[in-house]
Amino acid sequence: MMSKTNKGNFFEDFKVGQVIRHATPRTVTVGDVSLYSALYGTRFAVQSADSFAQGIGYPRAPVDDLLTFHVVFGKTVPDISLNAVANLGYAGGRFLAPVFPGDTLSAVSEVIGLKENSNGQSGVVYVRSTGFNQDGVEVLDYVRWVMVRKANPASPAPEPVVPKLPAALAADALGSAVPVLTLEGWRDDLSGSTARFSDYKVGERIDHVDGTTVEEAEHMLATRLYQNTAKVHFNQFTEGQGRFGRRLIYGGHVISIARALSFNGLANAFHVAAINGGRHVAPLFAGLTVHAWSEILDAQPLPGREDVGALRVRTVATKDRPTADFPNKAGEDYDPSVILDLDYWVLIPR
Amino acid sequence: MMSKTNKGNFFEDFKVGQVIRHATPRTVTVGDVSLYSALYGTRFAVQSADSFAQGIGYPRAPVDDLLTFHVVFGKTVPDISLNAVANLGYAGGRFLAPVFPGDTLSAVSEVIGLKENSNGQSGVVYVRSTGFNQDGVEVLDYVRWVMVRKANPASPAPEPVVPKLPAALAADALGSAVPVLTLEGWRDDLSGSTARFSDYKVGERIDHVDGTTVEEAEHMLATRLYQNTAKVHFNQFTEGQGRFGRRLIYGGHVISIARALSFNGLANAFHVAAINGGRHVAPLFAGLTVHAWSEILDAQPLPGREDVGALRVRTVATKDRPTADFPNKAGEDYDPSVILDLDYWVLIPR
Amino acid sequence: MMSKTNKGNFFEDFKVGQVIRHATPRTVTVGDVSLYSALYGTRFAVQSADSFAQGIGYPRAPVDDLLTFHVVFGKTVPDISLNAVANLGYAGGRFLAPVFPGDTLSAVSEVIGLKENSNGQSGVVYVRSTGFNQDGVEVLDYVRWVMVRKANPASPAPEPVVPKLPAALAADALGSAVPVLTLEGWRDDLSGSTARFSDYKVGERIDHVDGTTVEEAEHMLATRLYQNTAKVHFNQFTEGQGRFGRRLIYGGHVISIARALSFNGLANAFHVAAINGGRHVAPLFAGLTVHAWSEILDAQPLPGREDVGALRVRTVATKDRPTADFPNKAGEDYDPSVILDLDYWVLIPR
Repeated sequence: MMSKTNKGNFFEDFKVGQVIRHATPRTVTVGDVSLYSALYGTRFAVQSADSFAQGIGYPRAPVDDLLTFHVVFGKTVPDISLNAVANLGYAGGRFLAPVFPGDTLSAVSEVIGLKENSNGQSGVVYVRSTGFNQDGVEVLDYVRWVMVRKANPASPAPEPVVPKLPAALAADALGSAVPVLTLEGWRDDLSGSTARFSDYKVGERIDHVDGTTVEEAEHMLATRLYQNTAKVHFNQFTEGQGRFGRRLIYGGHVISIARALSFNGLANAFHVAAINGGRHVAPLFAGLTVHAWSEILDAQPLPGREDVGALRVRTVATKDRPTADFPNKAGEDYDPSVILDLDYWVLIPR
Repeated sequence: MMSKTNKGNFFEDFKVGQVIRHATPRTVTVGDVSLYSALYGTRFAVQSADSFAQGIGYPRAPVDDLLTFHVVFGKTVPDISLNAVANLGYAGGRFLAPVFPGDTLSAVSEVIGLKENSNGQSGVVYVRSTGFNQDGVEVLDYVRWVMVRKANPASPAPEPVVPKLPAALAADALGSAVPVLTLEGWRDDLSGSTARFSDYKVGERIDHVDGTTVEEAEHMLATRLYQNTAKVHFNQFTEGQGRFGRRLIYGGHVISIARALSFNGLANAFHVAAINGGRHVAPLFAGLTVHAWSEILDAQPLPGREDVGALRVRTVATKDRPTADFPNKAGEDYDPSVILDLDYWVLIPR
Repeated sequence: MMSKTNKGNFFEDFKVGQVIRHATPRTVTVGDVSLYSALYGTRFAVQSADSFAQGIGYPRAPVDDLLTFHVVFGKTVPDISLNAVANLGYAGGRFLAPVFPGDTLSAVSEVIGLKENSNGQSGVVYVRSTGFNQDGVEVLDYVRWVMVRKANPASPAPEPVVPKLPAALAADALGSAVPVLTLEGWRDDLSGSTARFSDYKVGERIDHVDGTTVEEAEHMLATRLYQNTAKVHFNQFTEGQGRFGRRLIYGGHVISIARALSFNGLANAFHVAAINGGRHVAPLFAGLTVHAWSEILDAQPLPGREDVGALRVRTVATKDRPTADFPNKAGEDYDPSVILDLDYWVLIPR
C-alpha cells in the first residue's frame, strides 16, 4: 500500500536540475496582515496604511515583504528541509513584485547544487526557490542551502556541484517590487522619521534600542501561520528529549522581530528589496529577549530612479543583551549573545 | 429587579420540544481564517487558496468546516452547557452548505431528549443544534448530549425521552456542502498528496507523525474566537482551586488539532462532511503535546457523484505520546494517553 | 550626524499649544476585528455581525469602540509617553464617528497643560488626542495626563497650566457615532439580553461573574496590534531587573477585558459613547485573573432621540478576586484587588 504520510526528501533523493512544485498554495489576506502586526508590532507606514500607500502611488498597502518570504519559505519545508540538520544560509533573495491582500502565493524550487559531507551521513542541498502569485508573476526568489540527512548512508555520493552565489545583489537588480513613487505624498511626520536616503552614511551604526521577549505561543502561531511544518518548532514532547531540551524558534521569526525593531532608526526604509545573505548564528528559545543593531554597509542610487535609493544594511540580533555597544563578530567568533547576522538591501525615499 | 446576568439553564429548565435561538450572530471573515491557520497550521488546499478552490468549482476558498462547527457550537454554550458537568457526545453532525468569509452565522437548538440521573442532582440534555447563514440557509446541524446540573434537586424529574441517534450517517446524506467539482483543476502537487479515494482501504491505519504542543494563550485565543463562554477554559483563579487545578482545554480545540495533524496522511480529504460521533476520552491541559492517528472505517461512493467519494475515518488523539503504534481502546478502556476518539466522514477526490 | 532613533519627548520638550501629528497611520481591517475577538471574546451583537448591524441601520458591523481607542492611543505613545513614569488619567473621551473595517486611523495631539513636579525631576503633561479616519473625520478625542521625566532636571519649569476637565460628559455630547437606529431590527434573543435602557436603575450594581486569566503572549499580541511601543510591556530582560521584576500589562488591555466581561449584565449596551475618566489603580501581570463588576451611575435620554438612551457606568476590575461582593474604594483606599476604576457612558436601546 502506498505510504500516505510525507517522510520528506533525504539527501540522496535530490538531483541537480530537479524542479519541485510545492504544496499548498495560500491566499494572503488582511487577516494575515493583522496577525503579522500583532506578532511583530511592525510600523512601516507603507504596509500599515492604505491611505499612505495610495498617497505615494500604490493601489493599496502591500503586504510586508517578510510575510511573503515566510509564506514562500514555509511551502518549501515539507520537500526541502523536513530532514534537515541545519539551515546553512541564504543568498540572492530578490523581492520582485508587490504582494497585496487577496493574492495567492505558491512556490517552486530547483535543486542547483549538491555536496555530500565527508562523513557520508548527510550533504548540503542548494535550492533556488521562487514564489509566484495567482497570475504566475514571480514575487520572490532566493537561494538557500541546507544540510540534509541521508536515509541510507550507503547510497552513493552525487557529483558535487556548488553553485557560485553572489555576496550581494547589485543595486540595479533592486526595486522591481516598488512602483515609481509620488514622493510629494510621503509625509515624514506620518512615516515616523525625517531621515532619508542621503542621511545615512556607509559605516554608520544604529542601535535599535527596543527589545522584545518571545513566548512559545507567539512563535508557534507565527510559524503555523506560514504553514511551516518543521517539527522542531512545535513538539515539546520530542524536543524536550532532544539536543536543546526545548522547542527551537523558527529563524524567520527572529528576522521579522529584528526587522520590526529596526523601525526605530530606519523608519523610512519601507521595503526589503533583497536578502544578500543571512546566518542564524545561534538558536533562540522562548522567554529570551531580542535586541538588534544595524550597520549601513552600502548606499546606492537605483539606476533610472529619482524616488528611492538603496541602503545595504547588516542587522545583528542578540538574545538577552541590549545592543547599545553593538555586540559583533571578532574574527570567526561572535559575541555569545548574537543569534542573527543578516545582510540585506532596503529601499528608502530620497 | 430583573437579573441582568446569564445564569445559564439548569436541567429542570429544559423541556422536550423547546426551541432556543442563541445569541450572538457572528460574521466570519478572512481574519478568522488567518487565526484558524495560525492556531492549527491547517494546510488543506481548498480552504487555503482561493485559486485552488476556484480551479475546482468553488467561487472562492470556503471556510474550514471545523471553524464553522466551533462558531455554531460556541453560540449554544451560554444556553445549553453553562451548567454542564460533562459534554457526553456528538452524533449526526452534517455540514450542509459551504460557508465563505463574509457570511454571518447564527444558531438554534431544539431540546430532543431529557433523562434525569438516578442521583437526582443532574440529568442528560439532548439537543439538535442548527447553524444558519445570513440567508437562513442551514450550514450545519448536529446532536449533542450533555450532563447538566439541577439548580434545585427537589424539582421533579421529567418524563425520560432518549432520542434514537444514528451510529453513523449514511453516505447519501453527505456532500451537500460541496459543489460538483471540476477535477481537472485538482492538482495533487499543490494539494500535497497523490492519494485519492481509491487509494484508501477499509481497515488501513495511518500515523500522522507530527505532534503539536498546546499553550494556554493558544487555546484561550481559539475558544474566545468562537465566542465560547464555558468558564473552565479561561479562569485559572477558579480552576486552580478545582478538580484539575488547571484550565481545561476546549474539546473542539483538540478536534481541530487532530484534523490539522491528519493532513499528513489525508491531504486530499479536504472536506469534513459529517461527524458521526465523538468522545473526549480525557482532558487536555496546556504544556502537553498532541499526536494523532487514523483508521479508515468505511469508504463509499456518493450517489450520483463521480467527483468525490467519502471516507469514514476514526481519528484518535493522544497527549504526550507519539502514535506510531496506534494507541487504542481495549474493551472499555483506552490507552491512558488517549484524549479524543472521533468518528467522521471526509470527502476526497476520486 | 542626526539621531535616527526616537528618544521620545521629555517634560521640557513639551510646550502648551504644541500640536503633534503622530506616526503611523493604520488601516483597521476585519483581521484586527478577529484578533480583537480572540483576545477578549467580545460578543456585542452590533460589532459581531454584519447582519445584525444592518438590521438596525448600520451599513455593516462597526469596529469595537475600544479597538479604535487603542489604535489611536498607540499612535500617541512614541511622542507623548515614551518617557512616562505613570499614566495618570483620562477625561472627556468621546467617540465621534463609527469606524468600519477598511478605515485608516491617524492621530494628532495638542498639549493643553503642563505642570512641573516639585521635585524638579518630572512633570505632568496634559494632551488632547484626536483620532481621524482617512477622510479627515474625527472619530475619537480624549484628554489624558501623564507624568513624564525631564531629561535635564536643570531645565527651567514652564508656567503651570492645568486644564479644567469635566468630571463627566453631558448626555447631549453623546451619540454622534451611532446612526438613528431602526429598533424593530433589534432582536433581544440575538443580542443576548432583554434588559434595555429602562431596566437599569441608578445605583444598581452588577457582578459580571466571569473571569479571565491573562497570558504574556496575549497582552503582547494585543499591545503590538495597537502599535503601542511602550517598552514596559515587551521586554522581560529589562523589566526583570526593574521595579516589578515583570512585564507590565498595557492598561488598555485591562479596559478591554473588563468591557468584554461586562457583556454578562450589559449585553445590550452595545456602544461606548464616552470615557469620563479612568484610573489604573494597580498594575496587572500575566498569570493573574481579571473579574469585574459595574455600577449604574446615571441614566439619561439622548436629546432628540427615541432609539437609544445613555447609561453612565462605573466598572471596577480586580485581579485574582471574584467580584460578587463588589470590592470597592473606601475613602482614598481601594480594596487591594482592584486594578481598574473606569467611568464611561454606554448607549443601549430603549
